[in-house]
Amino acid sequence: MKIQMLPREKVFRDPIHNYIHVQHKVILDLINTKEFQRLRRIKQLGTSSFTFQGAEHSRFTHCMGVYEITRQICDNFQRNYPSKESGDGLWNDDERIVALCAALLHDLGHGPYSHTFEHIFDTDHEMWTQKIITSPETEINQILKQVSDDFPEKVASVIDHTYPNPQVVQMISSQIDADRMDYLLRDAYFTGTKYGMFDLTRILRVMRPYNKGIAFDNDGMHAVEDYVLCRFQMYQQIYFHPVSRGMEVVLTKLLQRAKDLYEHNQMNGFEMPSLLVPFFTGNVSINDYLSLDDGILNTYFTLWQNYPDEILKDLAYRFLSRKPFKSAQYNSDTKEKLPELADLVESAGFDKDYYTAINTSFDLPYDIYNPRQHKRKTQIEIMQDDGSLIELSTISRLVNALTGKISGDERFYFPKSMIVEHSNDIFSDHYRAFKGHIHNDMIV
Amino acid sequence: MKIQMLPREKVFRDPIHNYIHVQHKVILDLINTKEFQRLRRIKQLGTSSFTFQGAEHSRFTHCMGVYEITRQICDNFQRNYPSKESGDGLWNDDERIVALCAALLHDLGHGPYSHTFEHIFDTDHEMWTQKIITSPETEINQILKQVSDDFPEKVASVIDHTYPNPQVVQMISSQIDADRMDYLLRDAYFTGTKYGMFDLTRILRVMRPYNKGIAFDNDGMHAVEDYVLCRFQMYQQIYFHPVSRGMEVVLTKLLQRAKDLYEHNQMNGFEMPSLLVPFFTGNVSINDYLSLDDGILNTYFTLWQNYPDEILKDLAYRFLSRKPFKSAQYNSDTKEKLPELADLVESAGFDKDYYTAINTSFDLPYDIYNPRQHKRKTQIEIMQDDGSLIELSTISRLVNALTGKISGDERFYFPKSMIVEHSNDIFSDHYRAFKGHIHNDMIV
Amino acid sequence: MKIQMLPREKVFRDPIHNYIHVQHKVILDLINTKEFQRLRRIKQLGTSSFTFQGAEHSRFTHCMGVYEITRQICDNFQRNYPSKESGDGLWNDDERIVALCAALLHDLGHGPYSHTFEHIFDTDHEMWTQKIITSPETEINQILKQVSDDFPEKVASVIDHTYPNPQVVQMISSQIDADRMDYLLRDAYFTGTKYGMFDLTRILRVMRPYNKGIAFDNDGMHAVEDYVLCRFQMYQQIYFHPVSRGMEVVLTKLLQRAKDLYEHNQMNGFEMPSLLVPFFTGNVSINDYLSLDDGILNTYFTLWQNYPDEILKDLAYRFLSRKPFKSAQYNSDTKEKLPELADLVESAGFDKDYYTAINTSFDLPYDIYNPRQHKRKTQIEIMQDDGSLIELSTISRLVNALTGKISGDERFYFPKSMIVEHSNDIFSDHYRAFKGHIHNDMIV
Amino acid sequence: MKIQMLPREKVFRDPIHNYIHVQHKVILDLINTKEFQRLRRIKQLGTSSFTFQGAEHSRFTHCMGVYEITRQICDNFQRNYPSKESGDGLWNDDERIVALCAALLHDLGHGPYSHTFEHIFDTDHEMWTQKIITSPETEINQILKQVSDDFPEKVASVIDHTYPNPQVVQMISSQIDADRMDYLLRDAYFTGTKYGMFDLTRILRVMRPYNKGIAFDNDGMHAVEDYVLCRFQMYQQIYFHPVSRGMEVVLTKLLQRAKDLYEHNQMNGFEMPSLLVPFFTGNVSINDYLSLDDGILNTYFTLWQNYPDEILKDLAYRFLSRKPFKSAQYNSDTKEKLPELADLVESAGFDKDYYTAINTSFDLPYDIYNPRQHKRKTQIEIMQDDGSLIELSTISRLVNALTGKISGDERFYFPKSMIVEHSNDIFSDHYRAFKGHIHNDMIV
Repeated sequence: MKIQMLPREKVFRDPIHNYIHVQHKVILDLINTKEFQRLRRIKQLGTSSFTFQGAEHSRFTHCMGVYEITRQICDNFQRNYPSKESGDGLWNDDERIVALCAALLHDLGHGPYSHTFEHIFDTDHEMWTQKIITSPETEINQILKQVSDDFPEKVASVIDHTYPNPQVVQMISSQIDADRMDYLLRDAYFTGTKYGMFDLTRILRVMRPYNKGIAFDNDGMHAVEDYVLCRFQMYQQIYFHPVSRGMEVVLTKLLQRAKDLYEHNQMNGFEMPSLLVPFFTGNVSINDYLSLDDGILNTYFTLWQNYPDEILKDLAYRFLSRKPFKSAQYNSDTKEKLPELADLVESAGFDKDYYTAINTSFDLPYDIYNPRQHKRKTQIEIMQDDGSLIELSTISRLVNALTGKISGDERFYFPKSMIVEHSNDIFSDHYRAFKGHIHNDMIV
Repeated sequence: MKIQMLPREKVFRDPIHNYIHVQHKVILDLINTKEFQRLRRIKQLGTSSFTFQGAEHSRFTHCMGVYEITRQICDNFQRNYPSKESGDGLWNDDERIVALCAALLHDLGHGPYSHTFEHIFDTDHEMWTQKIITSPETEINQILKQVSDDFPEKVASVIDHTYPNPQVVQMISSQIDADRMDYLLRDAYFTGTKYGMFDLTRILRVMRPYNKGIAFDNDGMHAVEDYVLCRFQMYQQIYFHPVSRGMEVVLTKLLQRAKDLYEHNQMNGFEMPSLLVPFFTGNVSINDYLSLDDGILNTYFTLWQNYPDEILKDLAYRFLSRKPFKSAQYNSDTKEKLPELADLVESAGFDKDYYTAINTSFDLPYDIYNPRQHKRKTQIEIMQDDGSLIELSTISRLVNALTGKISGDERFYFPKSMIVEHSNDIFSDHYRAFKGHIHNDMIV
Repeated sequence: MKIQMLPREKVFRDPIHNYIHVQHKVILDLINTKEFQRLRRIKQLGTSSFTFQGAEHSRFTHCMGVYEITRQICDNFQRNYPSKESGDGLWNDDERIVALCAALLHDLGHGPYSHTFEHIFDTDHEMWTQKIITSPETEINQILKQVSDDFPEKVASVIDHTYPNPQVVQMISSQIDADRMDYLLRDAYFTGTKYGMFDLTRILRVMRPYNKGIAFDNDGMHAVEDYVLCRFQMYQQIYFHPVSRGMEVVLTKLLQRAKDLYEHNQMNGFEMPSLLVPFFTGNVSINDYLSLDDGILNTYFTLWQNYPDEILKDLAYRFLSRKPFKSAQYNSDTKEKLPELADLVESAGFDKDYYTAINTSFDLPYDIYNPRQHKRKTQIEIMQDDGSLIELSTISRLVNALTGKISGDERFYFPKSMIVEHSNDIFSDHYRAFKGHIHNDMIV
Repeated sequence: MKIQMLPREKVFRDPIHNYIHVQHKVILDLINTKEFQRLRRIKQLGTSSFTFQGAEHSRFTHCMGVYEITRQICDNFQRNYPSKESGDGLWNDDERIVALCAALLHDLGHGPYSHTFEHIFDTDHEMWTQKIITSPETEINQILKQVSDDFPEKVASVIDHTYPNPQVVQMISSQIDADRMDYLLRDAYFTGTKYGMFDLTRILRVMRPYNKGIAFDNDGMHAVEDYVLCRFQMYQQIYFHPVSRGMEVVLTKLLQRAKDLYEHNQMNGFEMPSLLVPFFTGNVSINDYLSLDDGILNTYFTLWQNYPDEILKDLAYRFLSRKPFKSAQYNSDTKEKLPELADLVESAGFDKDYYTAINTSFDLPYDIYNPRQHKRKTQIEIMQDDGSLIELSTISRLVNALTGKISGDERFYFPKSMIVEHSNDIFSDHYRAFKGHIHNDMIV
């Protein structure tokens, strides 16, 4: 491996980590690729900025942050736990460069409005990340190859969890990794909430390598517990906010409508969304994929406001002008009411396929290792004074209360006009009937 | 005037002001217009986010912030300095609603990458702000009219500085106004610098109305002085950063090239940038103007990377992939060297019209009132215990050092390859000659 | 009642609330009394500053903060929930002044190193608070009387929980009151931890009066939940820190020794701690009580270092020079080992009465109302859209995990020399035996 | 030299630096001495906490902070500028330990209410710092000696500016040193102001050793400029606050009165302030000096409230109950009025020797090197790309405005009752005459 250092460390100012320190030429070169710079044009939180106005930050800054946290973990491991001989379970600093590259690039394959877009067009950002790293046509791949011929595959394997060193894998991906730590702090900062503000410095101090990955010193137990709580609260408060999901629903329906129109040849004769066509036809090259960003979707939404199709036009207007669908919670008992409610929406003049939706938001805040699960979780291990390990939830009552329990809610979405005040409207009976089903934000 | 209050105050979470409080229906309705929501898609700081990665915030959040500061000023004035009789120089709270609307809407006419775009296409965001407010075809205008028929013109006149009450005008526009106070704090927060962090709470406390506008209590002198210094430092450190200007130069040249190609009919046969065409032809409707945003420009830049024109293609790549032009300072003595340097750039294979530029950044940090100036400044007045006024720079040595003195620098921009290391390149003589003219970041 | 407003609001700068606003003359006068100023000389957190070096703040600043939060609650209630008629369960702003005074004065009776001192000398700060407020000889009493003759008793009754209006009582004292909210934020700020940083602004926004006290709006549920978690974490991390308790134990033993010596007339002939004598004899006047502060105790400790009694001298040195006792946890199983361990300490040359101790720290993080309990807790009520109330722990899984469960630990304290390394010491067998009983910070 | 590392780094939580890292056994041992722990009982800002209530922090935390900044400077120098051969002007890490010890101990000799106390009792904290370090009877000296026999003298010589390596001296003492950087940040944090919040991280990054001391990289010029401005503003806003000085004047007069009474044998028969007597008689041992702290003075003030001397009693009450003297500014023109004003104070029933005072506060915010000055300043040098140095004020207009110019004010102090409203008082003519001399806070 050829690892070239920069003549002088370069820093990037960042509101979360103050400065991001780049010391290797390969990292600087990766940052300067067109594929990585594209991440500047993709918002980290998608539709959340419609609810939390400050949250306009991009995936670019998040990736830089994950890199920086990983760099600090490596520094700490190298200073305090350097490996003396192979197999001693301590840190081998030759692993640093692959860890840093994987940290920087782990989100490279994200597209605009990730989950929504993926859902409609059946793409997968993890697969695309792998592809961008390993395909010879990308600038990323060419730069990684300068380290060694098999370096792109190595980096990809870290992101894929198949890299042999579990310390490196867990740095980037585990229940308490550089990725999550950065996004919690960053999203808290930009939304302006306090929920995500755990004590990063302390957690970094108490992290330590061992032969099966990464554990935490006993005296950092409370800092780790606090991180788990922060993560839970960010999901409940920010990521699952019903209004952001109301915008997500509008977006889903809008993209769906566009796809349907294209498939039925009803876009012919209008300015064609050329950069989206490959996704409509399902024939997407790397270059097609890397051309997309948030602004390109918004550009087409702007153009679609001039299309004759009333549904496409209306949904595009709703998205660009922030008119979220409203919602009410339902549960297993009231789920059976949904068809009736959808019919009332249809009766009030809306096509129920495009104007009603269910949206569920669930997260598993923390889990212990379960060999029977498909996606096995690496549980959080606390190291005692004598070196033995204790799993976190056995010593934290609060973490225990969250362990293995799915948390979130299920909501039915519909146009706002179903529930606002109307006077002497021809649909007023439908509205009244509809509103009668909702009480204290619940479908009853 | 019909001023309708909301049944319950609505808040927007904001990282700068914690919460933004909306109490009037007209304010909420204005926020929900498509013209105001468009501001979400225009970055506040244009190319600065290429240098300060956190600075990805939009004009939308800034406008919300200016509204909130204005609201707090009105609250303070109403609580502490309510007018008892006309002409007593105190605050008449009937002025609140026009102040709030003007604060919210003062930046409505900004287009993408404002100053650069305006320079190339000869538009003017202040004129467009007026137009959007006063033209009957906009949602903004219709909502303002619900207050009273002449209300749109009233709001526009505040922004235009022709409104009769100087207190209202100075809240929105003076050397220490809600606009500047918000952007300094906001830009400092999102860039992650500390330079802009003056004490807003204290300044709001010491502001007071008087018959010619707004003055500041004596015991707030130091807080006001600190604000002036912060503003100066933000300009020197953030707004004038040479690297952001290097991206601005790339953008200018790219838009210029596109315009030149269009005017010479060399875009024919390729996917036409339909939303830009009105700007190429100089025939722009309100709707054309309001369709534009940052993402639309970037979309065309993405498409232009597939155009055959080498210059357009290359500049689009440089902009999207963040390859700023490099620069060196010059002064009145060394200005005469610029043609020679431009020729060396041309000799190295670049069209000097598109690959060299001069860029000057100047600001007048603070000024006293000068009746002979075209744009007369409202000077900052400090009120003594006995009610007499003293102009700030007469009692602050630091402000005095900045008063009336233009500050900034003049730079010559060129492609980075002129100054990096090259080995055995056919242009190496030109490079060497070029580099010989630059020492300590100065042209010599 | 005669309530005089200040001609102009006065502010006190405070790092937690930015500014503390005083608008009533009586509040300013109370702050300026000698009894209230005494609180500047008593640390809020006692021995915690030996562990968290920044935590050197006084009870004075805390009391100011509790006042300010109460003031903000009143402002919010008056703006949004003003009572229209008696018995409507809304806020009657005539209650403001008694609430503000009670908030300011609620901790007036605290002595130096409160709990430790009270334990040894059998005093009670709550009783002293009442006494200082209601005794005619204090400046506090005289100022309160200027409002009305029965005003001191009214204020005292709020602190005593016997005041008839439950809204006023709960502001100052409930499971989520101005007192707790201030100390959590303040102690977090001064210790430099993040655990106590809940969202005060949001909680203040969602508080609302109702006929049985104070409830919280539904959309503030998560902010309230977060407050409960913060409180729990502050107790676990800061207030119960084993090292602070190690200093508390030293202090307890030191005061005990002094008292024992005095009672056995063994202080005769040395410089007498005149200000402490009333406490030794149990005959304490208000003036005696109000003379005490942290510095006075420390002064006597300094003098006691010159006493001939070896134990007094040594304990005084340990306290002033920060030599905490060490500790290990025990539980119901290992409690029986303690006499054996104490004997080993005695064998190593220490008087076990003064050199060993048990110290238990327990808190009930949150509890629901229980009519059979002696100290009934006011549970936290969340108000639904339709006005019905739900108790917090029924909708928060995390709060539920803490509800009604005591949390803390039991520790055995001993001199550090029992467990550090010794070579060829005459006591080395005792040390080895002692250390053999401790593993992973637990007695085994 | 025997430098022993700790088996594991120990951290102290600190609100300014987050964590303070101790890696050497000698540092930990020094912190644990009784002389260093005494600094916990001496407030950093003396009477300032009477004005800025949060500013109750001790010299202990400041010393810890100066140590931490010095440690970070050493880390940076060692990482980026390690000396390769003697005389190359780079950093020799063997100097680290002496720098760290000097940083930690530089304020060891401070007494209670430093400047006031020194003024009355003619002591000098710098001399006492030297003495405590070099006298064999202190714990400090014994620990330093474990490094090497001449190590105490070495450490003392750094503090004394006579140590041969100018890099080490300038770290601890220059116009931009670890001492000032810590106190500005710390005092800003605890007072709750924003004036002192410069960018420490950036300054540490741009510091670099050279053969005559420490210089700053060119691209850090603005951060250094900002530090100079912050320092200026902290002096103007915090350190020179007229109310704090009003308390300082009360304290001065109180100590003066006590000394006068002692000298005239008028304390006989009352409880003698035994720990102060050595200062009254001018015969002070190290042990006497190290016994003093803020609390001891306050204890005597408490006792003095029971003395029969009316002046002593009254001044003690004023100090403990925070009754500052009021003031007005004078200048060279109005100075001649002071005797007349003092006489009016006397006429109103106050002994003018103890109830009037002048207090001047002056600081030289920044200065360039001047060989003719007694205390020569090390000017701040900015290093250009080519290694040449430029003095800061030649490139910063703002610093230039402050350079070499003394800043502060001169005030006359007197009892508050001279200027408050009185009705039908026997002294009312005197009061009226007195007030007639003051306008807009100035003597006229």
